[in-house]
Amino acid sequence: MIATPDFDVYSSEPSLDAARVDERWVEVGWDDGERSRFHHVWLRDNCACAQCVHEITREQTYELVSAPPDAVSSAAVDDEGALDVRWVSGHRSRFHPGWLRVHRYDRADPDQHGDQALWDGSTPGVPPTFDGPDVLGDDDALLEWLVALRRFGLTRLRDVPCDHDAVGRVAGRIGIVRETNFGVLWDVRSEPDPVTNANTSLALPPHVDLATREYQPGLQFLHCIQNDTTGGEGRYLDGFRVAAVLRDEHPDAFQSLTTVPWSWANRSKLSDYRWSSPMIVLDRRGSVSEVRVGNWLRAPLAAEFDQVESAYAAYRTLFELSYRDDLAVQLELRPGDVLAFDNRRVLHGRAAFGGGGGTRFLRGCYLDRDELHSRLRVLDRQRRAAVMS
Amino acid sequence: MIATPDFDVYSSEPSLDAARVDERWVEVGWDDGERSRFHHVWLRDNCACAQCVHEITREQTYELVSAPPDAVSSAAVDDEGALDVRWVSGHRSRFHPGWLRVHRYDRADPDQHGDQALWDGSTPGVPPTFDGPDVLGDDDALLEWLVALRRFGLTRLRDVPCDHDAVGRVAGRIGIVRETNFGVLWDVRSEPDPVTNANTSLALPPHVDLATREYQPGLQFLHCIQNDTTGGEGRYLDGFRVAAVLRDEHPDAFQSLTTVPWSWANRSKLSDYRWSSPMIVLDRRGSVSEVRVGNWLRAPLAAEFDQVESAYAAYRTLFELSYRDDLAVQLELRPGDVLAFDNRRVLHGRAAFGGGGGTRFLRGCYLDRDELHSRLRVLDRQRRAAVMS
Repeated sequence: MIATPDFDVYSSEPSLDAARVDERWVEVGWDDGERSRFHHVWLRDNCACAQCVHEITREQTYELVSAPPDAVSSAAVDDEGALDVRWVSGHRSRFHPGWLRVHRYDRADPDQHGDQALWDGSTPGVPPTFDGPDVLGDDDALLEWLVALRRFGLTRLRDVPCDHDAVGRVAGRIGIVRETNFGVLWDVRSEPDPVTNANTSLALPPHVDLATREYQPGLQFLHCIQNDTTGGEGRYLDGFRVAAVLRDEHPDAFQSLTTVPWSWANRSKLSDYRWSSPMIVLDRRGSVSEVRVGNWLRAPLAAEFDQVESAYAAYRTLFELSYRDDLAVQLELRPGDVLAFDNRRVLHGRAAFGGGGGTRFLRGCYLDRDELHSRLRVLDRQRRAAVMS
Repeated sequence: MIATPDFDVYSSEPSLDAARVDERWVEVGWDDGERSRFHHVWLRDNCACAQCVHEITREQTYELVSAPPDAVSSAAVDDEGALDVRWVSGHRSRFHPGWLRVHRYDRADPDQHGDQALWDGSTPGVPPTFDGPDVLGDDDALLEWLVALRRFGLTRLRDVPCDHDAVGRVAGRIGIVRETNFGVLWDVRSEPDPVTNANTSLALPPHVDLATREYQPGLQFLHCIQNDTTGGEGRYLDGFRVAAVLRDEHPDAFQSLTTVPWSWANRSKLSDYRWSSPMIVLDRRGSVSEVRVGNWLRAPLAAEFDQVESAYAAYRTLFELSYRDDLAVQLELRPGDVLAFDNRRVLHGRAAFGGGGGTRFLRGCYLDRDELHSRLRVLDRQRRAAVMS
């Protein structure tokens, strides 16, 4: 039994077949021909023995940075296949070959976004559609749905029960619902004294929700409970695809939208949320990590004077793309549908509705991206454990 | 009555005394000698008339980017003191002088962090301390507390009732409590089957909570309900001050810690939250916006091979600073104390406890920074409205 510092499961293949101590690192070889180097300091930090990692919480109790530096005196592959490391201090560490394989770092910075596929109006099978009762009751169906949600950022469940708590049960399959000043679950319908344009019968241009927050909700769920009115058709765009088109076809607009901060504000008597951010946010590798778009939630632009006119021109270009039909998917919601989408990636809008009477009633909630990725890792871990056992 | 596009209140002083239309902007003068320029496109976007802004939600219904460009044909200060703008299209806009004054943008990008004062172990009056029942019952006391919380990032309330819901009531004075997989309210005490080192009696080095999440909680509340054990003294540092010392005294370490992504992970049987980020995060102006420090929540470092050793050296330097006594404030919690601090700024740690028996029992919760800033704006708005009426 080779200890690992977490609750994950690791394969014993490929196996280690060589270990060589260098002055600053240990180089290991795998039986598939790969080689990896691990610095002494990194190995010492990641020792998984019961002195260094709490046996119940699996959290580190050893403080590398409080201890004097140590160095590897010898390293070898032992009978169990572990990398057996002896330290100058006398300490001993054993590393699981599968754990080492997963955590080797002499390669590129790992992608935090996971597997993604961009889409537009011509991509077949968008939104990927799943059976609501299956997802609510079965972990394999849940995993299949969540893989699609991570990949496309837009999915649909069908035949979800039309009670008022169902959307919370669907989101709860993933993780902790994020409460906001709109509540844990909130309603979208035309109201006589609306707190937001969403609760009128007005058309809404493509947008994300809560661009007004530093922490935009990562996932949004919209559950159609009643829809016997006319109009209200939904319009959905992959914001990452829109950003890619912009980068290719309008590089000046892309440059402005990724650098000039726009201002956002929630108008309310009881709250006053504001944030300021470029409309397209890049991560440290230059990949698009989120979009912030929502025409009626913009506060007065407070950019540098000389950037204002080009910022508006760039925004106009982005807005025009969001109405280009080849980029959009049009959807009508019917009772029992739940749309689940990445609210930091997918723009959603709707046509005006209700001209001929009837009711359009949706209930929704939010979740953060962390919850999706955590649930995916746990489901994937369980599946791998089942395969190995 | 001059319409504004929000629920805020604006002063009529200084007043406008001049308006001149230029080809691309309107230049206005104030009776205190200041002058400001506003582009045509910006003014059109910010028209607050009932056609452009929904009268109840105060959210924009006009879509600038869907309409043909317009231009100002004339601008003048009218009898009510508003900037009266006539458009080539025939539209008319009136701008409140106080609203224009607050939103002029021919100056630097506004600071989103508000008024902050760095502190260390020698700063008098840290933590600023307030009366719990006052804060729970009185909005003026609430505002005074929150101004200090924004400024110092660390405050203490005294004499808060010791029931198990009190910390939620305190946080609820600000906004929406953020639920996590640890619950809405969570306990800190030594447990036989702990899910985290926080729930052992071990010492905890200075850290922030949930560095493992993309969205670190912005505020943390710790309510001491019982403390009759020995040890467990708290250690608090202003992470922004620590970062400033690092930037001055160890520029190489600062460079590494602001650029090399460290990995974080929650070890749990039921969840698997991970994130990767530099330990010191800078905003787009180069100011420190958050710190991520937590020795035992680190996952294996996955940086570029050639950065690993210098990253560890930089981390060691940061860790040593977090044990420098001149930078830290030591606090013992007594029943009824609530510590409220910016979890993305303040490092908190504790000594080991319980050697001589007894119980140390805290309850805590989280809130995001947005909630603090929203509540501050609303309280400030209410105070200004009272002064003006």
